[in-house]
Amino acid sequence: MSERFYTLNASCPDQVGIIAKVTGFFAKYNGWILSSHFFADETSQGYFMRLEVRADFMDFQSLKILFEKEVAQDLKMRWQLFDSSILKRVAILVSKQEHCLFDLFSRWRAKDLNMEMVCVISNHPDFKEFVEWHKVDFHYIPINENNKREAYFKMANLIQNYQTDALVLARYMQILNKEFCAQFQGKIINIHHSFLPSFIGAKPYHQAYQSGVKLIGATCHYVTEELDKGPIIEQDIIRIDHSHSVEEMILRGKDIEKNVLARGLNYHLENRVLIANNKTIVFK
Amino acid sequence: MSERFYTLNASCPDQVGIIAKVTGFFAKYNGWILSSHFFADETSQGYFMRLEVRADFMDFQSLKILFEKEVAQDLKMRWQLFDSSILKRVAILVSKQEHCLFDLFSRWRAKDLNMEMVCVISNHPDFKEFVEWHKVDFHYIPINENNKREAYFKMANLIQNYQTDALVLARYMQILNKEFCAQFQGKIINIHHSFLPSFIGAKPYHQAYQSGVKLIGATCHYVTEELDKGPIIEQDIIRIDHSHSVEEMILRGKDIEKNVLARGLNYHLENRVLIANNKTIVFK
Amino acid sequence: MSERFYTLNASCPDQVGIIAKVTGFFAKYNGWILSSHFFADETSQGYFMRLEVRADFMDFQSLKILFEKEVAQDLKMRWQLFDSSILKRVAILVSKQEHCLFDLFSRWRAKDLNMEMVCVISNHPDFKEFVEWHKVDFHYIPINENNKREAYFKMANLIQNYQTDALVLARYMQILNKEFCAQFQGKIINIHHSFLPSFIGAKPYHQAYQSGVKLIGATCHYVTEELDKGPIIEQDIIRIDHSHSVEEMILRGKDIEKNVLARGLNYHLENRVLIANNKTIVFK
Amino acid sequence: MSERFYTLNASCPDQVGIIAKVTGFFAKYNGWILSSHFFADETSQGYFMRLEVRADFMDFQSLKILFEKEVAQDLKMRWQLFDSSILKRVAILVSKQEHCLFDLFSRWRAKDLNMEMVCVISNHPDFKEFVEWHKVDFHYIPINENNKREAYFKMANLIQNYQTDALVLARYMQILNKEFCAQFQGKIINIHHSFLPSFIGAKPYHQAYQSGVKLIGATCHYVTEELDKGPIIEQDIIRIDHSHSVEEMILRGKDIEKNVLARGLNYHLENRVLIANNKTIVFK
Repeated sequence: MSERFYTLNASCPDQVGIIAKVTGFFAKYNGWILSSHFFADETSQGYFMRLEVRADFMDFQSLKILFEKEVAQDLKMRWQLFDSSILKRVAILVSKQEHCLFDLFSRWRAKDLNMEMVCVISNHPDFKEFVEWHKVDFHYIPINENNKREAYFKMANLIQNYQTDALVLARYMQILNKEFCAQFQGKIINIHHSFLPSFIGAKPYHQAYQSGVKLIGATCHYVTEELDKGPIIEQDIIRIDHSHSVEEMILRGKDIEKNVLARGLNYHLENRVLIANNKTIVFK
Repeated sequence: MSERFYTLNASCPDQVGIIAKVTGFFAKYNGWILSSHFFADETSQGYFMRLEVRADFMDFQSLKILFEKEVAQDLKMRWQLFDSSILKRVAILVSKQEHCLFDLFSRWRAKDLNMEMVCVISNHPDFKEFVEWHKVDFHYIPINENNKREAYFKMANLIQNYQTDALVLARYMQILNKEFCAQFQGKIINIHHSFLPSFIGAKPYHQAYQSGVKLIGATCHYVTEELDKGPIIEQDIIRIDHSHSVEEMILRGKDIEKNVLARGLNYHLENRVLIANNKTIVFK
Repeated sequence: MSERFYTLNASCPDQVGIIAKVTGFFAKYNGWILSSHFFADETSQGYFMRLEVRADFMDFQSLKILFEKEVAQDLKMRWQLFDSSILKRVAILVSKQEHCLFDLFSRWRAKDLNMEMVCVISNHPDFKEFVEWHKVDFHYIPINENNKREAYFKMANLIQNYQTDALVLARYMQILNKEFCAQFQGKIINIHHSFLPSFIGAKPYHQAYQSGVKLIGATCHYVTEELDKGPIIEQDIIRIDHSHSVEEMILRGKDIEKNVLARGLNYHLENRVLIANNKTIVFK
Repeated sequence: MSERFYTLNASCPDQVGIIAKVTGFFAKYNGWILSSHFFADETSQGYFMRLEVRADFMDFQSLKILFEKEVAQDLKMRWQLFDSSILKRVAILVSKQEHCLFDLFSRWRAKDLNMEMVCVISNHPDFKEFVEWHKVDFHYIPINENNKREAYFKMANLIQNYQTDALVLARYMQILNKEFCAQFQGKIINIHHSFLPSFIGAKPYHQAYQSGVKLIGATCHYVTEELDKGPIIEQDIIRIDHSHSVEEMILRGKDIEKNVLARGLNYHLENRVLIANNKTIVFK
């Protein structure tokens, strides 16, 4: 794990010989493939892949130039290359619920999430002391009915200035506006406290309680303009029964929310998630 | 397990002293309580219970008379008493999918489901030989656009003549009409091949595939007039990923459908399910 | 949840009329039973129960005296009564792994664990700053081959001085000595990073990797003199496959460890766990 | 799914360029790769792969000859090629427990297991009628202390005469002897009714009950000379609690046993399982 490697994420129209071409390229330059995943998506007719290649055979820039010229052009490929030595920069949006925020900080501190924590933005001042004790910037940006446009504009600027690679909504209870969603498409990761597509919108545990379901869940997904409809990255559930009140569901749900968010974020940080239409391909 | 026992299912308005009154009654007559569950439902303000009492202290009829007089009247209780030596009579409705039917027969044959299998009714003749080999009556009642009223009338008569305690829809692909649902309310058990309330109605696996969920499930519920909205008895899920086609989901879903249906039916057969509004209390 | 209540934990030899006697007592004094669980354990012939009763009908001391006189003596009952307004006092033992410690602090801060955190004791100084930032006492008690007896003596004194109700080993990597285990029997809760009884002792993830299991787990149990053999409170597992290295198992296992420990501790704090021989009865 | 394809299972010492060489071979002959999995096993330094290739580009025999010459020799590869149009031939060994047998027959009849069911062998005559009704050969081979050697010799002959590709122990309660295990190594699939390595040997549910575990499981594994120690293919668990007797564990365990055995067998039938030392690589 500690050796430096490059990760290739790529997709192209399906045809004979794609793997041969891509892996042949690396073989030609003596690039050692550490892991590889390939998937032909029937719906989109697209071919998707993720490769980890040891970084010792070529410098990053040369590789990008050669790969585009010798492989990607010919296959009409959309691709990205990542260097494991460069950590992704992550910002967190949070409101008043602490469990996801605390959990992300614990994992980051324990080096279980490979990322740089660049800042926390909140519409409440509550976690300022906690965040700053960890030597992370905290920005208090209150949001009300009258200042939404400016607030999101301000947030967007901050996020850009921090050169953020991922924006995590750790139970952020505001609905982002369209421009904001569009600007950071594929970079905003939300945790929704239900097993989507059940219980979209507000108070999903109350909805679950009303409906008498025997399992409750959480969903980590990319944020798009449509509320709670973006591509799903990860989900999980726990069992409940008639004896659980809404309050107990909320309490037990926290564990699922934390774990599903952390897993989903980790897949994103490790470049394991590719988006095809409104679905994700997650190469584990 | 082999000793004979009575099962009491009861509900009444909540107040002080309910358990004392009910269990005091059994203590008075030397009735040995094998297991007991009590639950105060905040929403309905109702108090629910299930008790198993060894049958050696009193005959069934006397117990019913005494319990009504000494306990139930005073507590404004709705209650039922069941005798473990009398098996519930179960009819199965099936179409062309065999997995739930075969599974129920296997469990019944292995004595893992304590019931009498009184008949199988199908809108297709396919399973006639299979069912009759097991020495169970098979009724072929085709259904089409023109004969629905008569067909359901015929089925209702059959089910009544068999003195059926439970009617299991083992992937029966017809929508029952209102009268039928009303006539057998609380006795019809369906298995729906999704994690309800997600993916109501036709082709839930196709809906799941489209939506990109990472888990698929099944739901066992009582049938009411509203399609796929009756009280949920049991649910479960399995993990899938991007690589699973609709066909693979259908295949893997079968295991969940079978197990969830069998568990739900078993709860019903053991009188573990009480209905409160549109939710179930399942005393496990 | 916010109203004050008393919790009764009790066990006695099985006979007719136990529930009637216990609940009759509460009915007599107008004690409103909020929840109740009863269980007849075939192996030990013991009868176990847990009741929550609203505290508004009698003061704590009177209740204890009356219950002993009117119920417990006659039934040869062993029982405890707890007052929900008095929080249990918890001390944590930790070594160098932070995930369980951080998780317990997060839950405690979010009021998801109803307890007082009285102190953290560690054989390493690493978490001093973290713990003290939360305004909790931190005690650094190094342990080596020569000072074991004194170290455990010192720890035992500390724990007694804090009037500790529960001692949580949050991945404490030292084996407690016999005297210590005996002194705090039924109060020491450990998290073992395997699905016991598989992989007892050191490096369970390495053992799991060697054995090629497809699931890994964690076990929360009371500590007894026999290493990793005390009564199990809670367990859970996650799925792995051939592609997971030991390091990845360790990383993924953390989530299970944290959740299983928190659930087990919570059952203990809510007086839901009764011990029968070397097994637990957990009334959920 | 219905189109014919070849499946390649292969392993070789790890080096640069393996994927390129293998997939380059298929690209050269216009072989369309439907799915591919690659895995570098750190422990054994071996490289493992599974590929599905559409069968329309070359006949089976030519492919085998060319692949050996152009790829395998150079890479020091051990490999097998399978033709999806040729079903694997499966024999079942069973004793008196029916649930796994019935389940396998249901799945086979529903075409959910792609195999030919060649015969059932049992040390009891009980299932003769059931098996023969399905038009499958049934062989009653009683086993006692005196006839073991002959009985296994007879069974081995039968299995060879049927040209069996897989031998499933569907809760076969006899311990196979060494010669038998050796003769069919990698072809005998057992379901053990515990979460191995816990509870090896007889009466695992009784062992589980004694130990007070909160989860019980089942393990599908290849049979080797060492009892319950062969390479694990698949495992799963369900939750139990203190209230479950041994009999209830046995009942509930059946669902896990059936599902885990069916999944494990299916992986074997689809050539998804490769063995590395005493562990399996399962390409899902």
